[in-house]
Amino acid sequence: MHRKVLIKQIQQKGSYLCVGLDTDIAKIPAHLREQPNAIVAFNKAIIDATKDFCVSYKINTAFYEALGAKGWEAMEETVDYIPSTHFKIADAKRGDIGNTSSQYAKAFFETLKFDAITVAPYMGEDSIRPFLEYENKWTIVLGLTSNQGAHDFEMLKLVTENISTAEKPVPLRSEYLYEKVLHTVAQWGTPDNLMFVVGATQATEFDNIRSILPDHFFLVPGVGFQGGSLASISQHAMNKDCGILVNASRAIIYASHEEDFAKEAGVIAQQYQAEMIGYLTN
Amino acid sequence: MHRKVLIKQIQQKGSYLCVGLDTDIAKIPAHLREQPNAIVAFNKAIIDATKDFCVSYKINTAFYEALGAKGWEAMEETVDYIPSTHFKIADAKRGDIGNTSSQYAKAFFETLKFDAITVAPYMGEDSIRPFLEYENKWTIVLGLTSNQGAHDFEMLKLVTENISTAEKPVPLRSEYLYEKVLHTVAQWGTPDNLMFVVGATQATEFDNIRSILPDHFFLVPGVGFQGGSLASISQHAMNKDCGILVNASRAIIYASHEEDFAKEAGVIAQQYQAEMIGYLTN
Repeated sequence: MHRKVLIKQIQQKGSYLCVGLDTDIAKIPAHLREQPNAIVAFNKAIIDATKDFCVSYKINTAFYEALGAKGWEAMEETVDYIPSTHFKIADAKRGDIGNTSSQYAKAFFETLKFDAITVAPYMGEDSIRPFLEYENKWTIVLGLTSNQGAHDFEMLKLVTENISTAEKPVPLRSEYLYEKVLHTVAQWGTPDNLMFVVGATQATEFDNIRSILPDHFFLVPGVGFQGGSLASISQHAMNKDCGILVNASRAIIYASHEEDFAKEAGVIAQQYQAEMIGYLTN
Repeated sequence: MHRKVLIKQIQQKGSYLCVGLDTDIAKIPAHLREQPNAIVAFNKAIIDATKDFCVSYKINTAFYEALGAKGWEAMEETVDYIPSTHFKIADAKRGDIGNTSSQYAKAFFETLKFDAITVAPYMGEDSIRPFLEYENKWTIVLGLTSNQGAHDFEMLKLVTENISTAEKPVPLRSEYLYEKVLHTVAQWGTPDNLMFVVGATQATEFDNIRSILPDHFFLVPGVGFQGGSLASISQHAMNKDCGILVNASRAIIYASHEEDFAKEAGVIAQQYQAEMIGYLTN
């Protein structure tokens, strides 16, 4: 999907909501669980109920892989069912040496028709380049994530310059690892094929991150169950093109565990959209 | 697989070879390619020909995912075919927030019967913990990888301590990001359930890495096509329990592109084993 199409969808819908299909067979309503294709039936109902209020769906590959080849089939059926108007994200956190990343790119951009994939940056440039070679496809690289573990490595301080000497001490210049990732990876792509995952529970960091990357889209997880505030994210992270996709998974798809699950998912998605349209027009 | 069993296998076979099944449908012999289950037929022939000379197989998930659900089925069939004496690694480079990593652990340790999975460390502790909770299963965390991109982030210098002042300048203490990853992740597991990926093209780093982690097993990719030297790795990285699994993928499985591919794969695997037994007994 071209950047202009994504921005137009956001404007037309008054929404930058991404619905996360982290569909867990153990958590879907009991009346569906016995069906042979329960995951797909659940996802289709959720998509039908939410598609007017969101611009994107994010499929968390782990939940499908846990079911083996059948889960992978359910993922294929789900991607095919998502309307072509919606931005389709494989939340797969892949990344490996070049010839392997090429195979992942093929898996998610060709075999499965996703628009975007999330990628981990640890292994560096040749692990990310193969994804960026596809036209109108997007690579979404982990920047700052919303989990507690973000403090372990992402928020470590790097030495960027050390020109102190015994004769002439100079204050050390340093930056967080995740800032270095943003700076460095941004040079490998453009705002037309590269986004970053930026976690919502670190809202205070958004001003800084937006100043590093004024033009890129951010995929923001962590709203709802992970505790981020939509108001705060929108205030600190938006740019002139909106520039954010805010994901909610469990808060929407498990809004109800009864037969009305899809209706309730639609209600919650509409609440997000109603709040978002206000931030878009301010 | 228990650590003791793995070490016994290594001693009995005189081998610490891991054969990487990075099976690419475009690269397997033409006479197989037309078969309905070509990938599995290829893998079974490779396993039959090499199993006496190796102690482990590593399945690179990307090559199977590129084929969609059918590829995932081929992966299931391949894992089932590997003898129970061999240590089965899913080279999957997964890692996500806790509830998602739990699903990946389920996928590779329960649905698929792997002994181990490779995991990327960027997202920190809660992305790795769920894998470590399984008894007799192994988490293999990326430390220093063998690709060019390792220089982008893994080899960045971190500030570990900065006690310099204008009055009293003190030399800055720093370490590489990958060293910090080794130090930190080692605290979350034990040498009985945790290994690290350590790249073979950085042989000069092995002495330092072994001093950081004297007891852990290292999974060493990068021998053969990626250019690492088996002699150098063995000299610098082994410990009293052997402590390394050395992977070769393309050098073995594509030793021949003709009908004799399996025989030639066996020949190369045997050459590695013959070299390894020398290093084990020295």
